[in-house]
Amino acid sequence: MSDWKDICSAKKKAQLASIPPEWIIQMPPKSQTNVMNVPQDCGLLTARELQITETTDVETLLKKLHSSEWSSVEVTTAFYKRSIIAQQLTNCLTEIFVERALQRARDLDEILKKTGKIVGPLHGLPISLKDQFTMKGLETVMGYAAWVGKYAELDCVIVEILYECGAVPFVRTNVPQTLMWGETHNHVFGRTTNPYNRKLTPGGSSGGEGALLAIKGSPLGVGTDVGGSLRIPSAFCGLYTLRPSYERLPYFGAVNALEGQESISSVIGPMTNSMSGVKIFTKAIIDAKPWTKDPLVLRKEWSEEAYRLSEHGGGKSLCFGMLWDNGVVRPHPPLQRAMEITKAALEAAGHKVIDWEPHRHLEIYKNAETIFVADGGHDYRAQCELSGEPVIQTMAPEEEAHESELSEPFVKYLVGEPEHRSAYGLWQLHKEKRELRKSHLDHWNRTVERTGTGRPIDAIISPAVAYTAVPHGLNTDSFYTTLCNALDLTTSVFPVTFVDTKIDKPQPPHAFHNHEDEAIFKLYSTDLFSGCPVGLQLIGGSQEEEAVIAMTEIIDNALRVYKA
Amino acid sequence: MSDWKDICSAKKKAQLASIPPEWIIQMPPKSQTNVMNVPQDCGLLTARELQITETTDVETLLKKLHSSEWSSVEVTTAFYKRSIIAQQLTNCLTEIFVERALQRARDLDEILKKTGKIVGPLHGLPISLKDQFTMKGLETVMGYAAWVGKYAELDCVIVEILYECGAVPFVRTNVPQTLMWGETHNHVFGRTTNPYNRKLTPGGSSGGEGALLAIKGSPLGVGTDVGGSLRIPSAFCGLYTLRPSYERLPYFGAVNALEGQESISSVIGPMTNSMSGVKIFTKAIIDAKPWTKDPLVLRKEWSEEAYRLSEHGGGKSLCFGMLWDNGVVRPHPPLQRAMEITKAALEAAGHKVIDWEPHRHLEIYKNAETIFVADGGHDYRAQCELSGEPVIQTMAPEEEAHESELSEPFVKYLVGEPEHRSAYGLWQLHKEKRELRKSHLDHWNRTVERTGTGRPIDAIISPAVAYTAVPHGLNTDSFYTTLCNALDLTTSVFPVTFVDTKIDKPQPPHAFHNHEDEAIFKLYSTDLFSGCPVGLQLIGGSQEEEAVIAMTEIIDNALRVYKA
Repeated sequence: MSDWKDICSAKKKAQLASIPPEWIIQMPPKSQTNVMNVPQDCGLLTARELQITETTDVETLLKKLHSSEWSSVEVTTAFYKRSIIAQQLTNCLTEIFVERALQRARDLDEILKKTGKIVGPLHGLPISLKDQFTMKGLETVMGYAAWVGKYAELDCVIVEILYECGAVPFVRTNVPQTLMWGETHNHVFGRTTNPYNRKLTPGGSSGGEGALLAIKGSPLGVGTDVGGSLRIPSAFCGLYTLRPSYERLPYFGAVNALEGQESISSVIGPMTNSMSGVKIFTKAIIDAKPWTKDPLVLRKEWSEEAYRLSEHGGGKSLCFGMLWDNGVVRPHPPLQRAMEITKAALEAAGHKVIDWEPHRHLEIYKNAETIFVADGGHDYRAQCELSGEPVIQTMAPEEEAHESELSEPFVKYLVGEPEHRSAYGLWQLHKEKRELRKSHLDHWNRTVERTGTGRPIDAIISPAVAYTAVPHGLNTDSFYTTLCNALDLTTSVFPVTFVDTKIDKPQPPHAFHNHEDEAIFKLYSTDLFSGCPVGLQLIGGSQEEEAVIAMTEIIDNALRVYKA
Repeated sequence: MSDWKDICSAKKKAQLASIPPEWIIQMPPKSQTNVMNVPQDCGLLTARELQITETTDVETLLKKLHSSEWSSVEVTTAFYKRSIIAQQLTNCLTEIFVERALQRARDLDEILKKTGKIVGPLHGLPISLKDQFTMKGLETVMGYAAWVGKYAELDCVIVEILYECGAVPFVRTNVPQTLMWGETHNHVFGRTTNPYNRKLTPGGSSGGEGALLAIKGSPLGVGTDVGGSLRIPSAFCGLYTLRPSYERLPYFGAVNALEGQESISSVIGPMTNSMSGVKIFTKAIIDAKPWTKDPLVLRKEWSEEAYRLSEHGGGKSLCFGMLWDNGVVRPHPPLQRAMEITKAALEAAGHKVIDWEPHRHLEIYKNAETIFVADGGHDYRAQCELSGEPVIQTMAPEEEAHESELSEPFVKYLVGEPEHRSAYGLWQLHKEKRELRKSHLDHWNRTVERTGTGRPIDAIISPAVAYTAVPHGLNTDSFYTTLCNALDLTTSVFPVTFVDTKIDKPQPPHAFHNHEDEAIFKLYSTDLFSGCPVGLQLIGGSQEEEAVIAMTEIIDNALRVYKA
């Protein structure tokens, strides 16, 4: 019975058993790739539950919760039911604990009723959590067969703070084995699909969150990002996110891949359907003084001054640098159109957009990717060996995989076989990283000559990925995202538009940057991507959470006005 | 001629030649161990130059400079002459560049005269720099024969900012080979001695600064600290210092030992004879927004609110934890008396002092020391091999070394032979480190039950070293300092008193913690330490520069009132 396959199927069976039978829906045919309308159509949700779950603005949700217009029990029930629909459609969940979450919601309703006071800024709000955030008494599997049955003795610090803030953690969400993929599949829980098109990946590694939030099965989720894991699924699923700087938000007590790797720290951040969700979550966590609980977190209060863009001319007339093409992979036509829309919208709103010249992009990427495999893969091999499960070599499905032009991802060509470095070898990579960070900062500062604002550019706008969601197994680009991890740049993702095959026509071939660029160019075929969300990144400086949120709000508003 | 000994003696000869011959003094006899009075007695300094250099309060110095009461040229000349006296007495300098510094001072005087405006907050102030801070066009030897002739092409960021602030970098100061010693000796420049007693070490690795500042050959110096290198010489030489948190002040461009080691980052900080010097320097550098030049520096403005102790009850009634004995080495009697004086002074000023229970002190120390040698010594061996100079095995002088009871420092017993770790092995040390930091933070927070203030203790007061300056070769204790590097706790050092053999009598033996504790106990013999300065550490939280400065000012004032 200790065969890893048995462990996985037993866990999967237990997961199924944790779903209230009355929440099992009639499944749409497998051939129905877009399942975004199922929650409205399947009949499980009442009209009021549909109204609640369609309230994507977190500020509005919280107002209704805090005024007792909606109780936490009904909000939690509504999102729970919808998350279970999402689970049946996209396989996005890991831990399901309905009664525990509802009891928490009942307790909060009771307190509000009795005292007239909310417990904290997130009072009553259901929050989904990537399968890294340990909760006392629950398993934390994180995609490894060997971790099944590993019950947490403590809440991790972010969960502890979420409870203090009045939140209702209510589901945990799927991840890829090793966490180091931009897709979401593992042997325990299987593959998560994209509700816009189930033949496509929702991205990863916070891909369970991506699929769940896209279908509005949660108002706000918490994910992590070491190379793009918040931003790739946010871009592929039409969401907002923030990749904060290293150690701004508390990671302590959460499990992780490559634990102890501190050269390029993984960070936690929100994923949600509104900028208000991004701001409210980030401010709530920082206002809870996480440095009093997690010794690695920076003692840096939320700054309303920074949020008012005091270092960016008060936000009146910003200048952005547009990264049209990073010189590694040229963005697909929908991404190019998204950048053009954003530029036009910002200009219409009185801001300026100049070209951003990529600076040593490949060198920075290579340094980061070399650091990520500096243990020669020892960490993930060791976790797999514990149960005997094989290390997954490709995210492509065994059946019906989309054929790819790409024989070997460019990163493998660039970095070569993972080499287990010595500590001294790792220090040399750090020296190189420091020099690259300085060089990039100086390059950024030199834009002061071109902005006309008296400041360097206020932020970079860039694709998060060169394409929209791709078929399972084909997401190889983390070139646009990893830059920000390597340089520790605060970065958001915001949705701009959807792929429109009538407008986003294939372009003639360009002089390809490399073999992956060529394969990705060839992948663009409008019938694959139709209707997929298109998102972009906003890249600010290190520890600029407040300013990046404010600038993303400015862009978001400009886009709304422009499109209206 | 490329024999390392020839390189060293040629460099030493060039150094001597860079001293204006008229500044060569009549040396006191070698038997005169205390040379603190030589600057007053030797006749090189005019009465006005004596007055200038005896002005140990940096705020006063700056007022006189900024009001043009004293010109930068005369202040720089006065300190330069006195630094050259210090050099002849204690061998504390490396690079000497009189004309360059005086030209800078002339330029500043000119600007002030012409415009009526100061260039920046440090206008006109001579500042000494540890031999890591590269200056364009000057060599940076850092104690390695192989680095002789290595001329810097750029100023490091801290020097760049010091220039922007109007400072006059005027000498560079000696360090030990490898920087990883708490004393100061290398093959190029030789040994630096303590002006209070030349048979004793000034400490290290910022020991050149220590000796220079003790004898008032500089009003303010900049050193670095990865395990105690600012604090050990400050304690041994009667100075004030601040060990800031990782990445609060800019290190970029400075050379270093173990470059690329980022597990426990080395930090830069001021050393000086006044708390005003510590505050003015720290605030000036942070106000210059160093994160716009050094990508690793935290974007964290100087906070007047934190300086007013907003998180410490406004500083009205603080509660300190006193670390009487860390359980590794018991402090010598003068240190115990210093702690008793400080406790009494604080209580007299309306504050509270409770006992601090050390928490996993040795585990934390061992983790840090293991990280420091995670390259198996590869880094320093490689630097020595470049020239063929041997790696220094002991700081004891070849002649007239003080006999020691200690056959092997406890750290060697604890850590064993340096083992070159793998990257994965280093990550495991990081995991251990994180757990230790969390455990120590929780321990700190639990003091809320004992303080009576509603807060955990505001800071810890502790020895910096278990003893005052010791004979060359005998400084083995970094147990009290390394704790703060490992946990990234903001820490100051402040002087309390001097060893008084009439009061500081040897104690009866205690139950020794270990063999080093026993040897250190036996070392205490009042004739060795008579008249030596006794300093203590104030240990605050991470990124608490403002609060630690404010609390040290409170202690400093309380001591002044108490002693009066």
